Amino acid sequence: MLRKEQNDLLTQTGPGTPMGDMFRCYWIPALLAEELPDNDCAPVRVKLLSERLLAFRDSEGRYGLIDEFCAHRGVSLWFGRNEQGGLRCPYHGWKYDHTGQCVEVPSEPKESGYCGKIKLKSYPLIKIGDILWTYMGPAEKQPPHPEWEFALVPSEQTFTSKRWQECNWLQAMEGGIDSSHVSWLHSGNLNSDPLFKGARGNKYNMSDARPFFEVTDNEGGLFIGARRNAEEGHYYWRVTPWVMPSFTMVPPRGDHPVHGHFWIPIDDENCWAWSFDYHPVRALTTEERGAMKAGKGIHVAYVPGTYRPLANKDNDYLMDREAQRKGITYSGVEGIAMQDASLQESMGPIVDRSKENLVSTDNGIIMARHRLLKAARALRDKGVVPPGVDPAHHRVRSAAIVLPVDKSYVDVAEEALSVIEGKAPTSV
Amino acid sequence: MLRKEQNDLLTQTGPGTPMGDMFRCYWIPALLAEELPDNDCAPVRVKLLSERLLAFRDSEGRYGLIDEFCAHRGVSLWFGRNEQGGLRCPYHGWKYDHTGQCVEVPSEPKESGYCGKIKLKSYPLIKIGDILWTYMGPAEKQPPHPEWEFALVPSEQTFTSKRWQECNWLQAMEGGIDSSHVSWLHSGNLNSDPLFKGARGNKYNMSDARPFFEVTDNEGGLFIGARRNAEEGHYYWRVTPWVMPSFTMVPPRGDHPVHGHFWIPIDDENCWAWSFDYHPVRALTTEERGAMKAGKGIHVAYVPGTYRPLANKDNDYLMDREAQRKGITYSGVEGIAMQDASLQESMGPIVDRSKENLVSTDNGIIMARHRLLKAARALRDKGVVPPGVDPAHHRVRSAAIVLPVDKSYVDVAEEALSVIEGKAPTSV
Amino acid sequence: MLRKEQNDLLTQTGPGTPMGDMFRCYWIPALLAEELPDNDCAPVRVKLLSERLLAFRDSEGRYGLIDEFCAHRGVSLWFGRNEQGGLRCPYHGWKYDHTGQCVEVPSEPKESGYCGKIKLKSYPLIKIGDILWTYMGPAEKQPPHPEWEFALVPSEQTFTSKRWQECNWLQAMEGGIDSSHVSWLHSGNLNSDPLFKGARGNKYNMSDARPFFEVTDNEGGLFIGARRNAEEGHYYWRVTPWVMPSFTMVPPRGDHPVHGHFWIPIDDENCWAWSFDYHPVRALTTEERGAMKAGKGIHVAYVPGTYRPLANKDNDYLMDREAQRKGITYSGVEGIAMQDASLQESMGPIVDRSKENLVSTDNGIIMARHRLLKAARALRDKGVVPPGVDPAHHRVRSAAIVLPVDKSYVDVAEEALSVIEGKAPTSV
Repeated sequence: MLRKEQNDLLTQTGPGTPMGDMFRCYWIPALLAEELPDNDCAPVRVKLLSERLLAFRDSEGRYGLIDEFCAHRGVSLWFGRNEQGGLRCPYHGWKYDHTGQCVEVPSEPKESGYCGKIKLKSYPLIKIGDILWTYMGPAEKQPPHPEWEFALVPSEQTFTSKRWQECNWLQAMEGGIDSSHVSWLHSGNLNSDPLFKGARGNKYNMSDARPFFEVTDNEGGLFIGARRNAEEGHYYWRVTPWVMPSFTMVPPRGDHPVHGHFWIPIDDENCWAWSFDYHPVRALTTEERGAMKAGKGIHVAYVPGTYRPLANKDNDYLMDREAQRKGITYSGVEGIAMQDASLQESMGPIVDRSKENLVSTDNGIIMARHRLLKAARALRDKGVVPPGVDPAHHRVRSAAIVLPVDKSYVDVAEEALSVIEGKAPTSV
Repeated sequence: MLRKEQNDLLTQTGPGTPMGDMFRCYWIPALLAEELPDNDCAPVRVKLLSERLLAFRDSEGRYGLIDEFCAHRGVSLWFGRNEQGGLRCPYHGWKYDHTGQCVEVPSEPKESGYCGKIKLKSYPLIKIGDILWTYMGPAEKQPPHPEWEFALVPSEQTFTSKRWQECNWLQAMEGGIDSSHVSWLHSGNLNSDPLFKGARGNKYNMSDARPFFEVTDNEGGLFIGARRNAEEGHYYWRVTPWVMPSFTMVPPRGDHPVHGHFWIPIDDENCWAWSFDYHPVRALTTEERGAMKAGKGIHVAYVPGTYRPLANKDNDYLMDREAQRKGITYSGVEGIAMQDASLQESMGPIVDRSKENLVSTDNGIIMARHRLLKAARALRDKGVVPPGVDPAHHRVRSAAIVLPVDKSYVDVAEEALSVIEGKAPTSV
Repeated sequence: MLRKEQNDLLTQTGPGTPMGDMFRCYWIPALLAEELPDNDCAPVRVKLLSERLLAFRDSEGRYGLIDEFCAHRGVSLWFGRNEQGGLRCPYHGWKYDHTGQCVEVPSEPKESGYCGKIKLKSYPLIKIGDILWTYMGPAEKQPPHPEWEFALVPSEQTFTSKRWQECNWLQAMEGGIDSSHVSWLHSGNLNSDPLFKGARGNKYNMSDARPFFEVTDNEGGLFIGARRNAEEGHYYWRVTPWVMPSFTMVPPRGDHPVHGHFWIPIDDENCWAWSFDYHPVRALTTEERGAMKAGKGIHVAYVPGTYRPLANKDNDYLMDREAQRKGITYSGVEGIAMQDASLQESMGPIVDRSKENLVSTDNGIIMARHRLLKAARALRDKGVVPPGVDPAHHRVRSAAIVLPVDKSYVDVAEEALSVIEGKAPTSV
C-alpha cells in the first residue's frame, strides 16, 4: 500500500518530477533500430517521459532525437524532408542536423549567423544491439553506454520487440518482478508455448502454487528468488533480477532462450513494454525466431503498421470464455504478454495503490518501490546518482536451479546471476 | 426552471450525493436476467450510480454484485474465472464468493485466516421477473422486495428490455411523465406500430393536441392525468403513474399490453432506460412478443452484441428527412423509443434547466421535481425514508378512460389506478 | 513571439471575449448557399465563435440562423420539422420563424399571447454570392453588407468551397498572409496544379527562395508585398492584401482565376477555411470549375457527406514519403490546401506563440497581430469600430507584377490593388 503522494512520486515521470529526473539519469530504449532502417528514411515521432520528440537518421547514418517542433513557428518536423545531412522543415526550409542544431534558415543571409543561434532540444541516440538508446538528462552527467548482455551478444543470438501498453510504467514493471502469478495466469501456456514448453522446471512451477519468496538487495537493484518444492529434499528456485529503474529478466527454462523486459514511460498513462529473448551461448533457431516474430512467448502480434497489440482494450483483448473454461488459457486471453498487459491495463491508467492489500508474495514489489522511492529522493535532495546507472549493474542474469533444501539461491548467486561470457544460463 | 444548485442536486447520483443517497434507498434494476443465463457463466461489468461493479452467477446459481476490482492489486475481476462457487482473479488466484467475501488467497497459509479479513464491497442481487435487482444502500436499511406488477405476473404475460441512453437519468425520466408530447412526436406511430395501433383512444390522442393536465399527489409519487376531448359530453383521460424516484407507466391502449419504464443512472451522463410490456390478465401473443424483440413499441433494435440502440447519436439516429416530410415519422427518427431518446440526448448530457420555459402541460414535471427535491432533502437532513421505498407504493397501474365531463379521473382512481389481481387494465 | 495573455486575446473568440466581440462586428461567412438548397429543406447545425446555432430556409425562402435549442426544454431543433413558414420542434410542436420568434405554442391558448414572449437568439443570414453571411453582433451596430469582389461578380465567374480545419483560426490565417512558404511547401505544385501552372511568375517564385518583404498599412488591414528577383534590373512583386480580421487573397498567376480565403472560428480549436476562386472579367472555364470541384488548387476532396478533408490528421494526411523524396510534393502531402492545413494543424490546436523565433519574412504576421491586438483593445476599451467593417475596405485585389528595381509595388497600389470593375487582375 502506498500513500497518494508516494504513488504520485513513483508514477509521474514528466520533466521536473523526481521520478522523471531519475529516469533521465539512464540510457533508456527509445526505438527499435528497425524503425530507422536506412539513411534519409522517414523520421519517427517518439514520445518519452511526456516529451514529444522526433527521431531520424541522416544521410551519413547519424541518429538524431530532437524536439518534434520547428523552432520557427512550431510545425511538426515529422513532415520534414530528411535530406543532405539534416532534416528540413517543409514550411520555410529551416534545416536541422542530428544534434538539433539549426544549419540553415533560407530567408536570412548566411553572413548574419542567425541559424547558429537556433538549436532544438536534442538527446543522443545510439545503436546497441537491436535498440536505439537515448539519454535524456544533462549532458555533463551522461553515463557510460549500457552493457546489458542481451544487447551485446551477436545479433543471431538475440531478438527484441516492443509493444504499446496503455497504463503507467510502474504497474507494468511490477508485473515483471512478480514471479508468483506465473503459476496462475500463465499456467495454460507453460506447456504449450513453443518458447516455454518442455522444460523440467515447468512441472515445479505448476505443482506448487504457493512459492516462498526470498528477496535480496544488490547494488543495482534486487534479486527476487521464488522457491517451490521439487523432488524430495530439494527446492526449485527461480531468480528474477531487477535493475533500477525498470529492467527485469524472466528466469530461464531448459535450453530455451532467456527473456526479459524494460518498461519505459511514454507519458504517465502509457508505456513501452520492451521484450527481448536471447541465448548467451548459441544462435536462436529459425523456429525460435519465427515464433518470436509471430508473437509467441513474451512477444505479441500487432495491429498492422503499428506497435499496438492486435488484442487490446478496444476489443476486450479478444477474450475467449470457452478457452478460459477449458483451461486452454487461464484468463481467456491468448498469449503470455497480453495476459499480463490485459490485467495491468484493467487496473486503470494509474492504479490507486492506497487500496491494495499486499501479501508475502508481493515482497519483491514492496522492496522495489522502497528502493525507487529512496533513490528518487536521494537524487532530488542530494544529487546522488541512482543504482543501475553504472554499467556494472547491468551484467546480471536470471537463473532457474534445483538446490538441496539447506541451500539458498544466494549461495550460488555469484556464478549463476552474473554475466559470464561463454557460459550458458543456469537453467532447469 | 431550476437554479443551478437544484439541477445539480437532482442530476448527481454518485456516492455521497443527496440524490445518490436517495437512489440507494431503493431496489433498482441492475441487469436483465438474460445477461447471466447460466451458473458459472461469464461475469458482466455493471456501472450504476457511478460505481463500477461486477455481476456474476456462481456454480450454485447464486447471484453476486461486487466491486469490479480485486482487493489484492486492483485487477478487474471481469477477467476472472467463475468456477466452483466463486469468482477467481486470474492474476494470483484470489477467490471471492457471491457476497464479495474472499474465500481463498492461495499464497497465504489457510490457517492464517488471512482471506477472512478480505471482503469486497458488494450488494444483494435478486431475480424478480426478468430483472436482477439490487439495493445499494446500507444493509440495515434494506427495504422489502419490490412488488411491481409487471415483474410479478407469470413470465408468459411480461417482457422487459433495456437500452443505454446517453444522457442524465432525469431528462429521460421527465420524458416518461410528459404525456403531452405523444400527440406530436409519436403521432406517426400511433396508427402504425403493432403494439399501439387500432385502439379507440388513439383518435382522441391525435385530434386534441392541447390536453389539460390534472396532477395529483399520492404517497409514492404522482398521478398525471391528461384530459382530451372525446365524444360530446365526454373527456378522454390518460393517467400516468409516477413512483419515486423513476418508475413510470404509459396509459394503456385497447387490449394492447401495458408498458412503462425505469430510468436508472449509470453515471451522471448516462442512464439505463428500462422498458417493460405486460398484460395483467393474459399471456402475450407470439406476435406481440416478436414485435417487442424486433424493437417495436417502446423497445429498440440494438447494435449487435450490445444494449446500445442501432440508431444512436453517432449516426444521427438514422434521421430520415423524407419520412419526416411525409409524416411517416414526425421527427424523421424511426421508433417510439428512439424518438424520445434522440431528443432527450440532443439536450446534451445534462440539460441546463435554468434556461427552460415551462408551460401548463409541464405540470407533471414540475411537481415531480418538487417531490424529488423535497424527498432528497428530507433524507439528507432528517433521514426520512423517501416515498416509493414501501412496496405498497409499487402497486399502481396506468389507465385510459372516457368519462362524462363532470367527472375526473380522480373519482375512479381507487379502482383503475391500483393493482387488482385478475382484473384487466382500465383501457380504451 | 507573443506573451501568453496576448496569444489568449487573439485566439479566444467565444461570447464576451475581446476578439470574440471584434469578430461580432463583421459580416462573416456562415454556410455555403448549397447547404440550404431549397425552401423547407433540412436545417443545418452551425457552430460559429463557440455558439451552437441552427440554419434553415423556410417555405418562402427566408434564411434563419437561430439558437440550436428549443426555448421550451432544450431539445435540438435540428430534429425540427421545417414547414409552413417556420421550424417546428418535434417534441411538443413549438414553432419558430426565421428570426427565432416563437409563433406557436400549441398547448397554450392563442389568446394568451404566450408565444409572443418567446424568442430565440437569432442572427441575420443573407445570401451574397455563393455564401450565406451572418452578423453576430448587436442589431443596432449592424454594418452595411459585404462587398468582396469574389462574391459580387456574376456566378459563372466565381467558385467557393469550405473545409473544416482542426486548429485555431489565427494560425490558419497566418498561413494565408505568409507568402514566403510558397517557394518551399508548394514548390511541387506550382508547375503541376492545373489552377497554378504555366504562369511566367512561377519561375521567379521558384528561383528566388529568399524574398524581401515590404508590408504597408492601409485602412482595412495590410498589403504584404514579397519581392523576388526577376530579369536583370527588375523585381517580381507578389502582393497579398489582408483585410481584418481574416480575409486574405493570394496573388494571381497569369490568366488563372484569383483566389483567397476567410478563416472563421468554429470554436477556439477549430475553424472553417473558406476558399474562393474567381476571375474579375471572365467566366470560369468548365475545366477550371471541374478542377476546383475535384479539390485542385486551394480546394480539397472531402470525406463523403462532410466538409472534412479526405486527407486529415486521423490518417496522417495520407503522407506519401515516396512523393516527398521525389519532390512530386515537397512535404509528401498532396494538394496545396492540405499542405498548409497539415502543417498548421501539426502545431497543435492552439500554437504556443511564446516559443516562436520569428524572422524578417514574418513581418506580415507580426504586423497583422499588432493590428488585431490594437483593434481588439480599441473596441473593448473605447468602442471603436474595427478596420474591415466598412465595405470600402473590401474592395481590394491581390497583384503579381514585374517592376524596375527602382520602383515598389506601393507605386502601383491604387491601380493594381483596388477593385476596378471590368479591369483584369494585375498578373504575371
